[in-house]
Amino acid sequence: MNWTSQIVAAHQRIEPYIRRTPVLDDVDLDLPKPVELKLEQLQHTGSFKARGAFNTLLSGDIPAAGLVAASGGNHGAAVAYAAQQLTYPAHIFVPELAGTAKINLIKRTGATLSVVPGAYVDALRAARTYEAETGAMQIHAYDAVPTVAGQGSVLLEWEAQGLEADTVLIAVGGGGLIAGAMAWLQGRRKLVAVEPETCCTLHAAVRAGVPVDVEVSGIAANALGARRIGQICFDLATQQSIETVTVPDSAIVVAQTLLWQSLRQFVEPGGATALAALTSGAYTPAKGEKVAVLICGANPAPDPFL
Amino acid sequence: MNWTSQIVAAHQRIEPYIRRTPVLDDVDLDLPKPVELKLEQLQHTGSFKARGAFNTLLSGDIPAAGLVAASGGNHGAAVAYAAQQLTYPAHIFVPELAGTAKINLIKRTGATLSVVPGAYVDALRAARTYEAETGAMQIHAYDAVPTVAGQGSVLLEWEAQGLEADTVLIAVGGGGLIAGAMAWLQGRRKLVAVEPETCCTLHAAVRAGVPVDVEVSGIAANALGARRIGQICFDLATQQSIETVTVPDSAIVVAQTLLWQSLRQFVEPGGATALAALTSGAYTPAKGEKVAVLICGANPAPDPFL
Repeated sequence: MNWTSQIVAAHQRIEPYIRRTPVLDDVDLDLPKPVELKLEQLQHTGSFKARGAFNTLLSGDIPAAGLVAASGGNHGAAVAYAAQQLTYPAHIFVPELAGTAKINLIKRTGATLSVVPGAYVDALRAARTYEAETGAMQIHAYDAVPTVAGQGSVLLEWEAQGLEADTVLIAVGGGGLIAGAMAWLQGRRKLVAVEPETCCTLHAAVRAGVPVDVEVSGIAANALGARRIGQICFDLATQQSIETVTVPDSAIVVAQTLLWQSLRQFVEPGGATALAALTSGAYTPAKGEKVAVLICGANPAPDPFL
Repeated sequence: MNWTSQIVAAHQRIEPYIRRTPVLDDVDLDLPKPVELKLEQLQHTGSFKARGAFNTLLSGDIPAAGLVAASGGNHGAAVAYAAQQLTYPAHIFVPELAGTAKINLIKRTGATLSVVPGAYVDALRAARTYEAETGAMQIHAYDAVPTVAGQGSVLLEWEAQGLEADTVLIAVGGGGLIAGAMAWLQGRRKLVAVEPETCCTLHAAVRAGVPVDVEVSGIAANALGARRIGQICFDLATQQSIETVTVPDSAIVVAQTLLWQSLRQFVEPGGATALAALTSGAYTPAKGEKVAVLICGANPAPDPFL
């Protein structure tokens, strides 16, 4: 796989549709040292997920039935938004348990929405039935090449914006974002995977030597709560031997509060998880090591404007 | 007054202490045309006010008694923060009516805080007594040259960051920010002053031909609710014949909601007021006219993290 050319192509494809999200150098966040930040939560639909969704839709033929996704959150909103912008039909199956905030986020895109009684697995079943009946296309949330290549464009863009850090901290759920980062950076900078203790798919897989199912709970679960790390991410993480750390929910709340109090950025728990590695000491930079943190999502529940 | 050199000097003075806040080009906000934005609400203490405060503190001798301010909001927080960073004592008198969110914002700076029963006028009386007794220095919130020069650095910075707009929309309270913008731009770009209908000091002054007291109410009053436009602002606005528009509170809420839903920026009503001129049609750009909006404050009450 020539990831570099995949990601360069993805970036060219999606550039007209995505936001070049802002970066900040040397932000003083009441930490021992300033950090670099990229505010990717300013992306369309409030997370980096729009990049992978657009890249997938622009990479291949879309069936007449359009797109289908089962999602309780950021992925569903991104697929729905990208489909709407590119004028494809999209049908998103959302578990009732996703809650008002995420359901409204998807509703605002104009996609057809089915709220399915029950949890994610019930929505997934409904989406698969719809897929089989209509021929609509599913977009994988994290474990597909066009998805990973799209997410990798975040790092391409950040380097073009002058990223200086030796080390970049990134939150991990299913691993699509950090896979894109590994695929782009190819070891040029150190990457640290940060996961909540209560849904640490990559950490568990690295320890087991193979992707394994994990129990999923905690405040960031609706964004980072994949049950198993994607194979693409796992393979890259193994090749590159990247460091993984975990943080407790309490540290995520501290980081979320800090981003609001110090920088007026209101992010969701998953969006503050990477920063929590610094606030909690789960990752302690060496003397002289320059650190960057990718802020990746801002779709909190409850939504403060609902 | 050589405003250009005043503002260049202010910028050099304050640069080590303030954030170079991010800008966005061509942001799609569900408006007829994309806009340029500067996210000045990411400034320390959540508003542009830190610029004027730092410039004042760095411009002259500070008495041993330090600083005093009467404020229910952003100015008080900025003075308190700047004093703390420069290790001067600061005593802020806050009206009880300011509410928990603003009081906590000031408290977090570490300044000495007196919560005064009653409204702003009671806090001001207490602050003046303290000033007379101790010799502490007051910093004017908007109508002083070092304050205006500090705020003008926002536009200096934005131009250095590549501002392209023909027209810049700025919210007006006492007029310190837009005075700084007028002083820096000197007519090179069009400025539009946007005020809530319920506290429109500049609009009223322009109509009367002289600064006049106005009634102050509405959702943005705790940030934009000066009773009378500053003389510096009025003189510049008269020389430059800048356009003033007013917006109803309902339009401010629409703009505030739009900034959250489309860009995940949670700002206070005063911070969304300039954008409200576009969402409401109070200002309609001509064909081909490129517009920029300065987002200036994000200290909402209630504070979502309190």
